Amino acid sequence: MRILGIDPGIAIVGFGLIESERGRDQMIHYGAINTPAGLPLAKRLLQIERDMEELLQLTKPDVMAVEELFFSNNITTGIAVAHGRGVILATAERMGVPLFEYTPMQVKQAVAGYGKADKRQVMDMTRRLLRLNDLPRPDDAADALAIALCHARCATSLLQKQNLAAKQTI
Amino acid sequence: MRILGIDPGIAIVGFGLIESERGRDQMIHYGAINTPAGLPLAKRLLQIERDMEELLQLTKPDVMAVEELFFSNNITTGIAVAHGRGVILATAERMGVPLFEYTPMQVKQAVAGYGKADKRQVMDMTRRLLRLNDLPRPDDAADALAIALCHARCATSLLQKQNLAAKQTI
Repeated sequence: MRILGIDPGIAIVGFGLIESERGRDQMIHYGAINTPAGLPLAKRLLQIERDMEELLQLTKPDVMAVEELFFSNNITTGIAVAHGRGVILATAERMGVPLFEYTPMQVKQAVAGYGKADKRQVMDMTRRLLRLNDLPRPDDAADALAIALCHARCATSLLQKQNLAAKQTI
Repeated sequence: MRILGIDPGIAIVGFGLIESERGRDQMIHYGAINTPAGLPLAKRLLQIERDMEELLQLTKPDVMAVEELFFSNNITTGIAVAHGRGVILATAERMGVPLFEYTPMQVKQAVAGYGKADKRQVMDMTRRLLRLNDLPRPDDAADALAIALCHARCATSLLQKQNLAAKQTI
């Protein structure tokens, strides 16, 4: 299963593609979509839309996993990120890619085994789980790989539960 | 000049089209895009995108005026509205419609002459300025007409300033 993780944003949208088969996860590709700060919001959003379309066409993921948005201190940034996230979700839906959403706590729990793990712990576990020599850059791409890993683990445990349920009913 | 005013949202996107010529504003069309509450967010966003495309094709506005987003009490609703607004802005940009943004205070000031006018005053002034017998429904459509009127007035005063400046330099 090819899973594209997305860390939504307006200035930087992180992405990370992994291949997950039988509990083994392999990094295929990662990076970020960047939009210039000086550009009007609508132009940045259109650039995100076009780059997301190209990314989905190139990477052909089976599913896309996107982090849910939680408001931190900066509401102005949060509003702009929500604009970008809206365009990302609409683009995936238009292109028929199944979507899954995870909270930051679910991502931390799935990757670092602890819902309150700090950013550094999550990044280090992401690097180890994908057997990478270095931490992926930028941080947004590392976050996106963590989100993809989170889906791999949640999807696997869901599958195991379904298999178990199926066996129990036989 | 055909101005399409938009009151952004996720459940209801209000729209109002006016024709504005030499200080006279005429209502052409108004209404709302509705998305069902039970639908997943990505599907609601895609519906907004498609309905906005159709609206822009049908109404062929010269410009689009969109209200800026300010956070009220409900942050969860605000995040969802920002997702919808992102899709609306990206769609207008993709279709080459020039975009203008106004704060709620600018809309109140332009339509009711007072930046802290209440909702009812703004709606009543919108109805009078457009010589309508009844208040447009839903409220989101009335708000959208007020936003279009705001642009008509701001654009006119901008034009007057430019004309004045041109005369002064002759």
